[in-house]
Formats: sequence, C-alpha cells, structure tokens
Amino acid sequence: MELPHSNIISYHVTSPFFIIKFTGPRSLNSFTKDDYLYLGQLLHLADKDDSVYFTILQSCGTFFSSGANFQGIAKQAKNSNDPELSKWLKNFVATNLYVTDSFARHSKVLIACLNGPAIGMSAAIVGLCDIVYANTEKVYLRFPFASLGLITEGGTSITLPKKLGNNIAYQKLMFNEIFTHADLKDKVINKTYYIEDTEEFNKTILNELNEKIKTLYLPSCLKMKKMLQSNLKDEIVKLNSLEVNDALQFWIDGEPIRRFDQLENRNRKVKL
Amino acid sequence: MELPHSNIISYHVTSPFFIIKFTGPRSLNSFTKDDYLYLGQLLHLADKDDSVYFTILQSCGTFFSSGANFQGIAKQAKNSNDPELSKWLKNFVATNLYVTDSFARHSKVLIACLNGPAIGMSAAIVGLCDIVYANTEKVYLRFPFASLGLITEGGTSITLPKKLGNNIAYQKLMFNEIFTHADLKDKVINKTYYIEDTEEFNKTILNELNEKIKTLYLPSCLKMKKMLQSNLKDEIVKLNSLEVNDALQFWIDGEPIRRFDQLENRNRKVKL
Amino acid sequence: MELPHSNIISYHVTSPFFIIKFTGPRSLNSFTKDDYLYLGQLLHLADKDDSVYFTILQSCGTFFSSGANFQGIAKQAKNSNDPELSKWLKNFVATNLYVTDSFARHSKVLIACLNGPAIGMSAAIVGLCDIVYANTEKVYLRFPFASLGLITEGGTSITLPKKLGNNIAYQKLMFNEIFTHADLKDKVINKTYYIEDTEEFNKTILNELNEKIKTLYLPSCLKMKKMLQSNLKDEIVKLNSLEVNDALQFWIDGEPIRRFDQLENRNRKVKL
Amino acid sequence: MELPHSNIISYHVTSPFFIIKFTGPRSLNSFTKDDYLYLGQLLHLADKDDSVYFTILQSCGTFFSSGANFQGIAKQAKNSNDPELSKWLKNFVATNLYVTDSFARHSKVLIACLNGPAIGMSAAIVGLCDIVYANTEKVYLRFPFASLGLITEGGTSITLPKKLGNNIAYQKLMFNEIFTHADLKDKVINKTYYIEDTEEFNKTILNELNEKIKTLYLPSCLKMKKMLQSNLKDEIVKLNSLEVNDALQFWIDGEPIRRFDQLENRNRKVKL
Amino acid sequence: MELPHSNIISYHVTSPFFIIKFTGPRSLNSFTKDDYLYLGQLLHLADKDDSVYFTILQSCGTFFSSGANFQGIAKQAKNSNDPELSKWLKNFVATNLYVTDSFARHSKVLIACLNGPAIGMSAAIVGLCDIVYANTEKVYLRFPFASLGLITEGGTSITLPKKLGNNIAYQKLMFNEIFTHADLKDKVINKTYYIEDTEEFNKTILNELNEKIKTLYLPSCLKMKKMLQSNLKDEIVKLNSLEVNDALQFWIDGEPIRRFDQLENRNRKVKL
Amino acid sequence: MELPHSNIISYHVTSPFFIIKFTGPRSLNSFTKDDYLYLGQLLHLADKDDSVYFTILQSCGTFFSSGANFQGIAKQAKNSNDPELSKWLKNFVATNLYVTDSFARHSKVLIACLNGPAIGMSAAIVGLCDIVYANTEKVYLRFPFASLGLITEGGTSITLPKKLGNNIAYQKLMFNEIFTHADLKDKVINKTYYIEDTEEFNKTILNELNEKIKTLYLPSCLKMKKMLQSNLKDEIVKLNSLEVNDALQFWIDGEPIRRFDQLENRNRKVKL
Repeated sequence: MELPHSNIISYHVTSPFFIIKFTGPRSLNSFTKDDYLYLGQLLHLADKDDSVYFTILQSCGTFFSSGANFQGIAKQAKNSNDPELSKWLKNFVATNLYVTDSFARHSKVLIACLNGPAIGMSAAIVGLCDIVYANTEKVYLRFPFASLGLITEGGTSITLPKKLGNNIAYQKLMFNEIFTHADLKDKVINKTYYIEDTEEFNKTILNELNEKIKTLYLPSCLKMKKMLQSNLKDEIVKLNSLEVNDALQFWIDGEPIRRFDQLENRNRKVKL
Repeated sequence: MELPHSNIISYHVTSPFFIIKFTGPRSLNSFTKDDYLYLGQLLHLADKDDSVYFTILQSCGTFFSSGANFQGIAKQAKNSNDPELSKWLKNFVATNLYVTDSFARHSKVLIACLNGPAIGMSAAIVGLCDIVYANTEKVYLRFPFASLGLITEGGTSITLPKKLGNNIAYQKLMFNEIFTHADLKDKVINKTYYIEDTEEFNKTILNELNEKIKTLYLPSCLKMKKMLQSNLKDEIVKLNSLEVNDALQFWIDGEPIRRFDQLENRNRKVKL
Repeated sequence: MELPHSNIISYHVTSPFFIIKFTGPRSLNSFTKDDYLYLGQLLHLADKDDSVYFTILQSCGTFFSSGANFQGIAKQAKNSNDPELSKWLKNFVATNLYVTDSFARHSKVLIACLNGPAIGMSAAIVGLCDIVYANTEKVYLRFPFASLGLITEGGTSITLPKKLGNNIAYQKLMFNEIFTHADLKDKVINKTYYIEDTEEFNKTILNELNEKIKTLYLPSCLKMKKMLQSNLKDEIVKLNSLEVNDALQFWIDGEPIRRFDQLENRNRKVKL
Repeated sequence: MELPHSNIISYHVTSPFFIIKFTGPRSLNSFTKDDYLYLGQLLHLADKDDSVYFTILQSCGTFFSSGANFQGIAKQAKNSNDPELSKWLKNFVATNLYVTDSFARHSKVLIACLNGPAIGMSAAIVGLCDIVYANTEKVYLRFPFASLGLITEGGTSITLPKKLGNNIAYQKLMFNEIFTHADLKDKVINKTYYIEDTEEFNKTILNELNEKIKTLYLPSCLKMKKMLQSNLKDEIVKLNSLEVNDALQFWIDGEPIRRFDQLENRNRKVKL
Repeated sequence: MELPHSNIISYHVTSPFFIIKFTGPRSLNSFTKDDYLYLGQLLHLADKDDSVYFTILQSCGTFFSSGANFQGIAKQAKNSNDPELSKWLKNFVATNLYVTDSFARHSKVLIACLNGPAIGMSAAIVGLCDIVYANTEKVYLRFPFASLGLITEGGTSITLPKKLGNNIAYQKLMFNEIFTHADLKDKVINKTYYIEDTEEFNKTILNELNEKIKTLYLPSCLKMKKMLQSNLKDEIVKLNSLEVNDALQFWIDGEPIRRFDQLENRNRKVKL
Repeated sequence: MELPHSNIISYHVTSPFFIIKFTGPRSLNSFTKDDYLYLGQLLHLADKDDSVYFTILQSCGTFFSSGANFQGIAKQAKNSNDPELSKWLKNFVATNLYVTDSFARHSKVLIACLNGPAIGMSAAIVGLCDIVYANTEKVYLRFPFASLGLITEGGTSITLPKKLGNNIAYQKLMFNEIFTHADLKDKVINKTYYIEDTEEFNKTILNELNEKIKTLYLPSCLKMKKMLQSNLKDEIVKLNSLEVNDALQFWIDGEPIRRFDQLENRNRKVKL
C-alpha cells in the first residue's frame, strides 16, 4: 500500500536496522492521529522486510514525544458533523487499537532511544518496546489519563504493572504522577547515557548496536523474541481491546474535550 | 448520548425485555455501518437499564439479516479520499470491534429470534447470542469470508469452533459452506418453531418467555449470566482484536472490494 | 481424621473400586449439609487409598439424589442466632466450596451410576463426574437456581456449557428447565441401561467394570485422568470460588429462604 | 443487611474516601474471625457506595495488625463439639475465602496506611491492596505459616511472588522470615513517611490524597482499576480457592492448634 | 535439510495441495519411529512452501494407519545397550513431541482422508487434523493406551475431550474402547463417503476440493486457520510436553514392552 | 530404575535435604548430555523420597557449571551416521525437554548454592531454582544463545523476563550479555556470602538451613511450594516445548556446530 505522508516521522533502513525517527522538535514531537497511523504502518513495513532484525525509535530535540496533539483532536472534534460515536470510533478507538497492536505483535526487536520525556500514548509506546536506552536522568514517562478524563491506553493497563510493579503502577496512574528515571531504571530503561546532543546520543547507540551484533547469529534474535513474547503479547492484545472499548464512553461523554479546553484556556491566560 | 437514527432498526422496552427489531425486509435486513453501530449502542442502552434482564433480537420478513451492505461499503470506499489505512480503520476495524465487543460483554441474557437466514457479520452476531430460537428448518448461517477475501470476524474464530465443533467450523469456514439448521440444532439453536408468519413467530416467543419467567427470580438470571460468561467472554475479547487487526490488511490490499465488484457485475448481468 | 456419621451415605472399598452409596430412598436421597460434607470426606479417603483407581457413586430407589434438604436449611437458618453473614458462610459457602473442590480435584476416575433424577447440588455433582451411566430414559438433571433465588453452583457455570453446549446451558439454567436424557445422551451420559431394579442396575455396571478392567494397566488410567483434568479442573476451581462468593449475597438478602417457605406452604396446601 | 458489630474496626465515609479504621491498639489490632468478616462487609459497603472512589485502611498504635487472634481460635476450637471438618470449614475456610475475595474483587482503589508491622492474614491483606503508604522503616510484613503448621493464605501464593519476586517470596515464606521495609520499598510500599504519631500519619496521607485528587476525573480512576485488575484478580480468585481447601487438612490434622498451644505455654513461662 | 527416506510414506505437491500418502497397505500402514519423523518433516516442508494452502493425508488399503510398529520398538529396545532413560527419550519422547508439535502448529489447513481405522499415535494425528473425510462407517479410532501400559499421547488428552466431549473421552480412553464412526460423525468426521476403492475415495475428495476452492481467496483460508488455532494450539503444546514427560516413566518401568511381548506371544500361539 | 553413572555429579540424602553435588572442577563442571540426564533423574529420585523437603544443588571449584560440553556434542554429531533430525532430537530436544521438565515440576524446594558463574543450560537451571545463594559478587549467569546460533532454552524465555524484568531479559539475551551479580541480587539471588572456599560456602549454607528449619513444620513448606508453583510452572511447561521444537531447526541447519568449530579453532590458535 502507498504510505501516507508524515511531516514529523521519517524512516530509513540500514540492515539489520529499521530506523524510525521523530523529527518535530518544535512541537515536542507531538503527534496527530495520522502521525500515529504512519508509525503503525512503518512497523508493518519493518515486519515484512527480511533484512531487518531490529526496529529502532529515535527522536530529536528535548522531548521523545509529548503525545497526542490534543488541540488538533479538539478542533477536529468540534468541526465534525459526525455523531459522537462515529467520531470517536474513528478518531480514537481505531487509531489506538491499530497502533498498539502494531507494537504488541511486532516481530523484530523493538528499541527506543529515549532522548527525553514521553507522554500519553507515546509513553505507552515506550512501554511496548523491548529495550529502552535513555539520555540522562531527565527522561520520564507520564500518563495523564486521570487528569484528562481518560483511561489507561496503549496496553499500559498491563505493561506498567508487569514492568514497573503493580503498586507503583496504581499510584502513578491514579494520581497522574511522573515515572521518573529512578522509577524506570533497570526495569524499563536498560542503560543511561549522558550525552548533551540528541543526534550524538542516537548515533552512539547505533554504533554500539553495530558493535554488539558483530558476532551474533541474527536469526537467533528473532526466534528468541518470538519466545519471549509469550510473556506479554496475548495479554496486551486482550487489554488493548478492553481499553479502547471502555475509553470510548469517556470520549462520547465529552470529559476529555472539556478538559483540553480548560487546559487551553489556562495556557492562553498564562501567556497573556 | 443522543442516539443516531436507523431506518431499519427500532427498539422498545417492555421490562424485563429490551426488544430490538430489524425492520428492513426489502433489503433482507442488510445493514450499513451505521446500522451496526446503532445496534451496538442499543446494547449499551440495555446494559444500563436496570429494569432489563433480557435483550431480544427480532427481525421481519424472510431473512434475519443478510449482513453488511457491501454495495454501500464499496461505493463509500471509492468516493472517499482517505488513505486506504484510515478508510478501513474507520469503515471496518472500528465498527466491527465495537459491535462485537458490545455483544461479547453484554450483561443481559441475549436472545435471538432467528426467523430466517443470517449472513456474515449478522450471522456472527447470532453466534454471540446466548439463546437462539429458530423459525422452521429453513434458517441457516453463512460466513462467506473465504469467498470475499475476508477472514473470520465478529468473534467467529472462537464462537464457531466452541459452539459447533472444531472440525465443523473449519470445513464450513474454509469452503464457505452453509451452517444448516441440522448443523445448528441443539448447539446454537435451542428450539425450532414452525410458524408461517414472522410477526407471529416473534410474538409466540415473547409470550412463551413471559410465561417462563413468571416464577423466576430475575436477579439470579443476570448473576448466572455473569458466571457463564467465563466460558467465552475473555477469548472473544482477545480474538475480536486479532480478527479486526489481521483483516485490515486484506481490506487495504483491495481483495474484498474487487470481489464485491465482481459479484455486482454478475448480479447485474443476471438481471439483464 | 474420624469421619462423621451419615445415615444415608455409606461406602465400601473393593479394590480397585471405592463405592459410595446413597441409601436414603424415602427422602429421595435428599442431603443435609452434613451429608454433603461426608461425601466430600469420602472422596478424600478414596484419594489417599493407593488400591483405589475408580470412585463410584451409586444410589437407590427412584431418585439419584433430590439435592439439598431445603426444609432443614430453612429451619436451621431460622433457629440460628448467628448474624446472616456467618450463617450463610457456614451453611452454604464453606460446604459448597469444599464439596465441589473435592470432586474437581479428585485423582481417581469418577463414575456416577445415575439410577434416576438428580437435582441442584447433586445434579452439579453428576456434572463433575468423568463417566455417567444412566438407567432408562427417565433420568434427568435439574438446576432450579433461577426459581429459588440462587445462582449456578457446584461448578455448573463451567461444566454445563462445556459439556452440554453454551446455548443449551443458558436456556435450561435461565428458565429452570430439565436436562432430559435426550439432552444428556452422548454428552454427559455414556451409556443407558434398561433395568427395572436399581440394585440390579448398580450390580450390572460393577460387573461390566470388572470385566472391562481385566486387561488394563490401571496406573495408566490414573495418569490419563491427570492429563485429561487439564480440560476442566483449573476453570472449575476458579468458578467454584466465584459462585459461592456471589451466591452469598442472595442468601443474605433472604430470597432463597422466602422461596423455600412459599414452596413449603404450597406443598402443605396441596396435601390438605 | 444489618452489619455485625466490631469493637476494634470502625469506618466512616468522607466522599470520595471510605475510611476503615482499626482501633484495637492494646491487642496490637489482632482480629477475631468476626472482625475479619466485618472488614469484608465494609468492603462490600464501599463497593456499593457510588460516592466512594478510594477505600482506605488506617490503623492506630504501633502495629497495623498482628493478624488472627489465635488464642481465640484455639479456645473456640476446643470448646466446640463440632466435628473437625465442620469446625474448620466454619472457622477458617469460609472466613478466609470471603475476606480474600472481598479484597481481590473490590472495585475501588485500595490504599493501606501501614503505620507498623502486619502479620499473617492481615499482612496478606496489605498484599492485596493497590497502594501502600508506610510510616518509618520499622514497618514489616510477616507470614509465619511454616512455623504455625499452615500454608500461604489470603492470596499470598500469588501476590508475594508477583509483587516481590519469585525467589524472594520462596525464601521468606519457607523460612518464616520478615519482609522488611527494604524488601517492600518500591514494590509494595509506594511512599514512606517519618511521622512519630500514627494519627498524624493517617491525617497527613488523607490531606495529601485530598490534594492529589483535586484535579482528577475520578471515574477515570475506577475504570483504570478495572483494567489494572487484569494483572492479578483472576489468579487470586483461583489461588484463594486452592489455598483454603488445601490448608483445611492442616487444621483438621491439628498441627496449627498444637503449635499455638506451645507458643502460649512458652509465652506464659516467659511471663512467670 | 536432506529428508530421510521412508518406504511407506510419499508425498507430492499439486498446488495448493501438499499431499502426503501412506503406502504400506500390507503392514496396515504401521509406522516405525523413522516413518513418524518423516511425516513431521513433510509437514515442515509444507509449512515453508508458499504455494501450499492445504496439507492432505491420504492412505491406501484397508487401514488408515495401525499406529506404531511395536514389534520394531520392542526389538530395538532389547538390542540397545543404552540406559533405559536414554533409550526411551530417543525412541519415544523426542519422536512423539516432534510429530505432535509439527501437527499442532502447522500453518496450512490439515485434511485427513480416513479410508479406514487408525490406531494409537496415528489416531492421535487424525485428532490433530482440522478436517476429516471418512470412507464408509467402518472407520474408527482406537487409543489402546490403558491396555498397553501407556498414557494419552499426541495431544489426545486435550483433543479428545474438546472434540468429542469430556465424558465420552474418559470412557473410551479408560477402557480402551473404540471411537466408532457414530461417535466421530459431525464432531471429528466432516463427511462420509461410500466408495469401495480407497484410490477412488482419495481422488473423489481431491476433485471435490478442487471444485470447492475454485472461487475462494486462499490467503483468507490461511489467516482464518491462524485465528481458529486459538481454540486448541496452546493447550496442545502444553499437553504434548506433559504427556511425553509423564509417559516416560511408564516406558522406563517396562510395562509397555512386557505387554507387547504378551500380545506377540498370544498372536504367535493363535497362528500355530 | 538403575541410575546411569556420572563422574562429575554425585548425591547424598541427609533428610530433609537431598544434596546434589557437581564434582568436576577441572572442566569447570561442564556437562555432557548424560550428566544432564543424570541430574534430571536425581530430581525424580528426590521427588519420590518422602523424607526429602529440600533439593540442594552444590558445586565445587570456581564455576558453578560452564554448561554443555560443546566439544563433546560437536564430536558426537560428526561421528554419528544418524540423519540430522534424529541426531538432534536425541542429542538436544529430548535431553533439554526432560531436564527442564524435571526442574519445572519438581515438588521439593529447589535451592542453588551458586559458588561461581553458570553458563547456558546450567544457568537456565539456576533460573529454575526457587532460592539461590551466591558466593561473592563474582557469580554471574550467561546465556550465549545469540552467539552460538541457538535460542532461549531451559525455560529462560519465561523465567528470565518474569524473574529479572522483561526489558533486562531482552537486552541481555539479544546481545549475549552477562547477568551480573548486581542484576541478579534481590531478584534471583536471595543472599550473598563472602567465603573464600567453596566447600566452606556449601557447608555454611547447609548449617544455616539446618538452623532455619528447626522450628518449621516441613509439610507446610511442600504445600506452599505447590501453591507458589502456580506462578510459573504451567508457563515453563509450555515454553519448554516451544523452545526445543523451535531450536531444533537451528541445530539441523548446522549453525551451532559451525560456531563451536570456530570457537574451537580460535581457542586452539590462542594456545599455540
């Protein structure tokens, strides 16, 4: 299929690496619905490329990704004449289900180069990666679902308790608290770098990976991934379906949009 | 939320019954995407109504429902400027996921009054009902996925093998064969009536139900449903997600639309 | 442990058979709480006896067992000064959990000689047996939970849909309908005999079993049972816990006792 | 239902908080069977109260709760004329099953304010809470099952390995070792306070919670809890049933009572 | 890999069919260990062939396959100097695990043309097929594990209860009874033919299949198989491992070989 | 059964301890296929001994065990005339399946005294133990599957993510990195000793265990183990089967042997 265009996500293949890059530093790599869809499609592209063994997410600037562009969503929602149900099936359910599924069942080893904070659905994606490298202790993950009138998405209902501990996940999710570098270290984050420049950070990781794989038999890696997926895949598939279907009512009832508007107004006043 | 309108699905509540009626006999109760969405919404309405213990599907005319209106889908698909992915996420993935989930996790006892054949997604819905009453031996279920370039949907990947037998499900699904009354009897169909008129058939069932429940303690029924759902619910939730995500590629690749067109042309020629 | 006494359940061991016999034909083998507990204990006795490979349930008279003696339960409940919660934990939750668990995890092959109808918890026990032999087509199972203000018990939430079909289980449970011999044949009932006398029926089965096992290597049977238990054991364990905990509220709310009283009054009037 | 009375457990509702308080500092908040049952009932009360989103356990004095009052159990056991099986079904199986189930399937966010050590069944309850706040590093959990002739209860067979690590759980359970603050930190314990006075500790947490929830959309919290329960709920339900049924034989064989007596005698000698 | 040779199993590919044929009518298609291994390898060959959508098992003569050649096994066992453990790991565990796994995880639609009876491991293989066509009512399946000092193998611990009913499976397995055509009809057997000649039977099926698939979109079939495998695959994988590991002790203890010898002697005497 | 002989594994029983000792310090306790089989048999011996409650693995010298003796395997493989499939079923599949299963379903508490590094299958065995005591921080685990053209074995596909964290397991397995003492501490390693001499280390642990169990009721320990096995047992059983069957193809394709040869040549050159 022809791929749609995204202005802030690009990719290139340097076998055995399929490198996806977020290139919207000015918006803190905030993504529209179409950006997320494009991301999911790239994963399918990587899936089908036999020369690829590792799919790598890189970003640029200070944020890994600030998550969904809620302004865009709110605007789109208000301009749409669709009934509420259709609107949110299209704008939320289908997108989230598809993107989460693309990650949960991806067949290549998923590596995130976490240059900075990730928020919301983008933070959920970090939770779906197999290996995470962080740049400095300033990185964090944040899931502001409780503050936005939303619920756990992107499989976080299962990835967070399983990867970070049940009680930790409850506390942070319920009260919209940040998962700091200290929380993530040795659980989600595999290694921390201290490199000023994001480009340098990304390059360093790639160099190290190139070094690491020199003597490996790469088909072993893919088959081990298949085995290791027994740990989480089926549960994510199930939770993904529950999450989007149960979040739907929240969107239809309008709470998230009301809260985006409030945030917006507050931000505007602050600026004045 | 305000409910969208459907010209061929109506409902009324006569506690403890929430009665959903298909009222499009001329189109053989073929449903558009919006009709299916409306159906899902009615289930949520029934879920929330404390006076309701049984949700009943009735139809009219000779078919229970001939399934998705593919002409509509094909036309919509061709007129749309959306990229293929967005198009099918909206028109297929979101709809099917939502409707299937509405049935799979419905809290009231689901009864289908099967007045005639059901096809495709509508047949899948019959497979998701708890109790099925049939009118004469002319009823059947048909899942033409293999002929249309589609795959099992509406949870049929699990409801058919579990309810009708593994090997039977394989044979009929692979070769697009009909599940006849004989196949369904005592497995999916609980009782068969022999009543000429569909209205009379529907009324008879309702009368019998009214008789049956006279001495029952209805809260027992809902709690037993909750217990009995252990048998299939979690598996349907998981399969629902797998089914829509794996079918997506078939829609994007275009095979279903190509096959609808062929059918259309053949039908048109037949008419000339 | 010393075994309590039951007037209407006896047992004897004729290796490799552990034979449990219901001996209360006048009460149609209706059981008190203590009778059910005794039954559970006998199963544990059989479990520990290395000479035993088959545990056989026999009855006498016209009924296999008419289930719990509700008059006794109602009387006991009224005379007790215990708070409602303690009363029903003791009289219902603990008993049912224990008996169901004794059957679900029993290590020997469980055979029921179904001489006549079984009702309620006793019918649930038939559902927990591995092999069932029936005498004539007059046998039936009945689970009057919906009529008594109760819910599925004894693992029936899972044994009935899995053994008799999902939709059949729903219909019969929701509307308190009888599972007739025709419903049970080839699903729960392995073979039907046509022998007037119950004693003769029991003896015939035992003779046939003695014949059948002549050339068997009996340790193979126990190990195969262990393997075959993968099919249902874990699910029954889980449902057993859910069933008793969710039924508890129904007992505390008093609906079952109200309905026993009504039945009692009606029966008394009929007799006058 | 009318609630039984407990002298050492009280509660009050300050929406959105349902606050349960242990008020028996002199007995170190040791609980009788009836106290535990009362606790379970309070959870059901909280479940049904739509104004409640968080259920909070507070205690007083130096211990959170020293667990079951074994002296009481032993005395009761000796004075009872019940057969051993009935005695322990009533005094152990039913109680433990009910209390554990009340926590495992509770629909509100469960928060324990751990002012001091918790032992046995009360420690198991801490293991069933979603969020735990501790006062100083003197708190600990202790599960003396191996020393008392008992086995894992209150779902600890699954909550301890899943929350604290498989090998850690084995070591501590097998050898009756204490789970210290260091063991629990960042796994079970979410935050540690250093406040002399328990009342002050409880109040501080409540104030912080009030602060935290100010901007939250509370329905999001309940729905996220429902999603997060996928992590442990079903497994606890199953293990709860296995634990009580397998512990039963230990009670019937008398080892726990023998060991309570020994402890008692030793304690008495120490005092002389 | 180069394929080993089998004198009584051949194959050819006529896309989309991969046809495996048993060609040892004189031995009633009894298989040596190497024959079974060859069969497993053919399945892997079919798995990898993109032109293949259906893998078809055909036989010849009067038996589908009389199962393992026990004479060969016994002779081999006696001549071997291997310690008992190594001997049976090699001759039983590895072979059965491999063959069963090859069938359980096969990606193409598996069709058995059941020309006559199948016994033991070969009957288990029929139980692992997705679709079964039978020739006349003389076909049957037999699993003489209890008579041979063996236990359920080839996934029969789960395929038989799931496909044929729990109680039916228990009865037939425990007492080494035949699963007749009547038992298998509409559960394992999809259609019955009445064709004298086996070659003709095989050809007829192939012709019908060629007819059936004419209008199908074959990739739909493979994807539906993937979905439908949720029903049994994971459970067979788990049971396969339990079955071979638990059967091992029976082989080491020598009961099966003793029983083969007895059978042998009896057969020899009958011939004299 | 008579046990085969192993020159470098011995055992003795000092109830309640079954002590298995690795006694091949010169080969760094590298094991042949037969050594591993012997180890599995010792576990079955311990299983059957009612006086045993703890099965303890001790080693000697500087390594706990350097894993499979690949030189032996390579030599054996080259000298064998068996077809590739038979060769690897015998030399790899059967052995690994058996040994892993012996550990996964062992009924006694498994304790490893980790005197030094463990590699490959021997490291997997450490991952299958319930409790691990380490000597100094020089111990480590290493799983060089990706470097040897192999895949996760010995249940590591599930034990490593569940015990050490999902992302940690991915990183270390994919890139053949060492699990250091710091990685293992408080997750796999329960306690670290600092004792020069391995014999002294082993003796100290045994003394401590003797001290610890003095006041325990040992049947409680076995029953708690049975309960705690719910956490991992079933998943290991399933993964064990998947691991060996999927690794098989790698052996048949010859990559592992090619890589052993390379290692061998490199080692030889280094020595020259």
